[in-house]
Amino acid sequence: MRILVLGGDGYLGWPVALHLSARSHEVVVVDNFLRRNYDLELGLGSLVPIATLQRRVARWKEVSGREIAMHVVDITDGYATKRLIEEVRPEAVIHFAEQRSAPYSMIDRAHAVHTQANNVVGTLNLLFAIAEVDPSIHLVKLGTMGEYGTPNIDIEEGYLEVTHRGRSDVVLYPKAPGSFYHLSKVHDSHNIHFACRAWGLMATDLNQGVVYGQATEETAMHPDLATRFDYDHVFGTVLNRFAVQAALGIPMTVYGKGGQTRGMLDIRDTLACVELALANPPSAGQLRVFNQFTETFGVLELAERVSKVVGGAEIAHISPPRAEAEEHYYNPAHTKLLDLGLRPHLLDDDTILSLVELGRRYGAGVDQSVMLPTIQWRRPGPPATGDAGH
Amino acid sequence: MRILVLGGDGYLGWPVALHLSARSHEVVVVDNFLRRNYDLELGLGSLVPIATLQRRVARWKEVSGREIAMHVVDITDGYATKRLIEEVRPEAVIHFAEQRSAPYSMIDRAHAVHTQANNVVGTLNLLFAIAEVDPSIHLVKLGTMGEYGTPNIDIEEGYLEVTHRGRSDVVLYPKAPGSFYHLSKVHDSHNIHFACRAWGLMATDLNQGVVYGQATEETAMHPDLATRFDYDHVFGTVLNRFAVQAALGIPMTVYGKGGQTRGMLDIRDTLACVELALANPPSAGQLRVFNQFTETFGVLELAERVSKVVGGAEIAHISPPRAEAEEHYYNPAHTKLLDLGLRPHLLDDDTILSLVELGRRYGAGVDQSVMLPTIQWRRPGPPATGDAGH
Repeated sequence: MRILVLGGDGYLGWPVALHLSARSHEVVVVDNFLRRNYDLELGLGSLVPIATLQRRVARWKEVSGREIAMHVVDITDGYATKRLIEEVRPEAVIHFAEQRSAPYSMIDRAHAVHTQANNVVGTLNLLFAIAEVDPSIHLVKLGTMGEYGTPNIDIEEGYLEVTHRGRSDVVLYPKAPGSFYHLSKVHDSHNIHFACRAWGLMATDLNQGVVYGQATEETAMHPDLATRFDYDHVFGTVLNRFAVQAALGIPMTVYGKGGQTRGMLDIRDTLACVELALANPPSAGQLRVFNQFTETFGVLELAERVSKVVGGAEIAHISPPRAEAEEHYYNPAHTKLLDLGLRPHLLDDDTILSLVELGRRYGAGVDQSVMLPTIQWRRPGPPATGDAGH
Repeated sequence: MRILVLGGDGYLGWPVALHLSARSHEVVVVDNFLRRNYDLELGLGSLVPIATLQRRVARWKEVSGREIAMHVVDITDGYATKRLIEEVRPEAVIHFAEQRSAPYSMIDRAHAVHTQANNVVGTLNLLFAIAEVDPSIHLVKLGTMGEYGTPNIDIEEGYLEVTHRGRSDVVLYPKAPGSFYHLSKVHDSHNIHFACRAWGLMATDLNQGVVYGQATEETAMHPDLATRFDYDHVFGTVLNRFAVQAALGIPMTVYGKGGQTRGMLDIRDTLACVELALANPPSAGQLRVFNQFTETFGVLELAERVSKVVGGAEIAHISPPRAEAEEHYYNPAHTKLLDLGLRPHLLDDDTILSLVELGRRYGAGVDQSVMLPTIQWRRPGPPATGDAGH
């Protein structure tokens, strides 16, 4: 299959591109290096050194004998996006090309506007390009479990059957997300839903949970193929961050009580889920939604798991920077990918230990000043002096 | 009350500004004349001649003795928007400053992107400015009944009580709108909902139906105070357009069977609804949603009403340009504004006749070439030769 991976230089885009290339798909990666620019803007960096995209692609050819083509395109440029789709003529587009950090979107007005404009406009351009060039291209779009928020009812996969005053309908699952980033994904979902209804496009929305892990079968083949690993308070996801804190012997920072419960998955399962979505496309006019995670964990529970694995590590409950419930009901469905054959890598001690070991191996390069949260959800003003973010 | 009217040069913004000024509020209008620019872009124009905003404001002072201040600001400029809120320090902001035509948003990719970026970014800037300057400013935001689409269940006012697998929650009413314009309003609603939850802002979302009519008590006081009246296929709303067609003796163009049912209201009721929302603010942290219409009508039913009033007029069923159900269930709630004291102007023959007479009076200036729909919902490409829109 000819597959375009947008955001193919990122934490997940790059391993997905390698995984699909290794399985004989014809892979084209596209990026505009916005993610690496955010690092420059905020003074952050990957724990694990990462090669340039050019070097990654060259090394992959050397190691595997397979070619991955690369294009530098900003998909907020509608003309460039259409030309890209015309030239590559993919059978599927995997769309990772969005600003993906909730804290980043909450820095201030400019970052909220950037996040929503970048994500919504890029996705709109892509929808138009697919509809104009070839409506049978399967759009595989990365959404997030965070779109749902934490409702008091069970979370279903994308849709909800509602009976109301004696009548019934199936509606898009109502969303109440907790950041301007998560909201941008809700906007995307509504736009994609409409494009499927009006133009007959076919799309899969992967509402992904929090991903942990770093090594995949392919990225482990050579240091130049490694994917990034973020431990900072802006882009570092919870388990990855805890593992680095434990490795350095500094307290794992739990926001408030730590009763926030989230769906999570191993990076290797992200690859498998994307592959399953590609192999089982939806029908024309259908927006199919999968909840892409394998287990739910409480944040404090995760810190305790890490502590146990390393034989004791300190846990610090810090003032919660986010506007979110510290304890809540959470019961999201996640059967559709299992029904397609997903065999999850559930979180085990070995995986936790491998992350801690990553932290130990690269610990000398860690900048501890970027690990404590400084972006405040409840205060919309520009950052006070001393805040990170500028 | 000191009130900022954003989009105060528009079809509804201007009459609302006059109405509030006449009732002794201190009114400041803001516009960037985007609406008049769309006319220039598409070769359209108001049926009724309209004065410049400067002339309108000067005439109002002469006629009423009251001052309306005006500012030219584009609210997609975040710095200018914050400075505006800081300088005016309003108690309430009425937000009409959005691209408001569904067909305009469906012309092509660029118009879809413009509509969503303009509307979403403008509203985000406003939310940040209010939160940073004074969170107690009451935001009165114009939404649209079109956000809901046409679900098979009763439409409630903004929220839905859901019981699912033995548990209950109150959620934002699920939306399935039918254009990139209507989608932009759904995006706004989600963003505003979050800003109320995270920052404690207070907002009223007025999900307005299709407005008809042109004259209000204040606009009728002098020709320079008249508000615009659109009869074209891009900005002209259904009853206004039918009245002009009947006045000219050309067929009223019903899209398909005409079983599309919509909530509608008299322009004079728009003024009353905004006034009621201002006089009864929500509490801090609350996004209150009102469905702002007074009656529902089928499109064919409206054409038949006009035909009867003028003693017979032709009705043409034309190929439907939009992706929408031609017949559907529609039962939207609209009690909250009535509970606050709204006394509706229900559609009567005199109102229809006044619109037809407007069409007769200004009929010589009508450009019939802009009355037939040429923007196609089902075909996302650039306009074919001969299409309007460029």
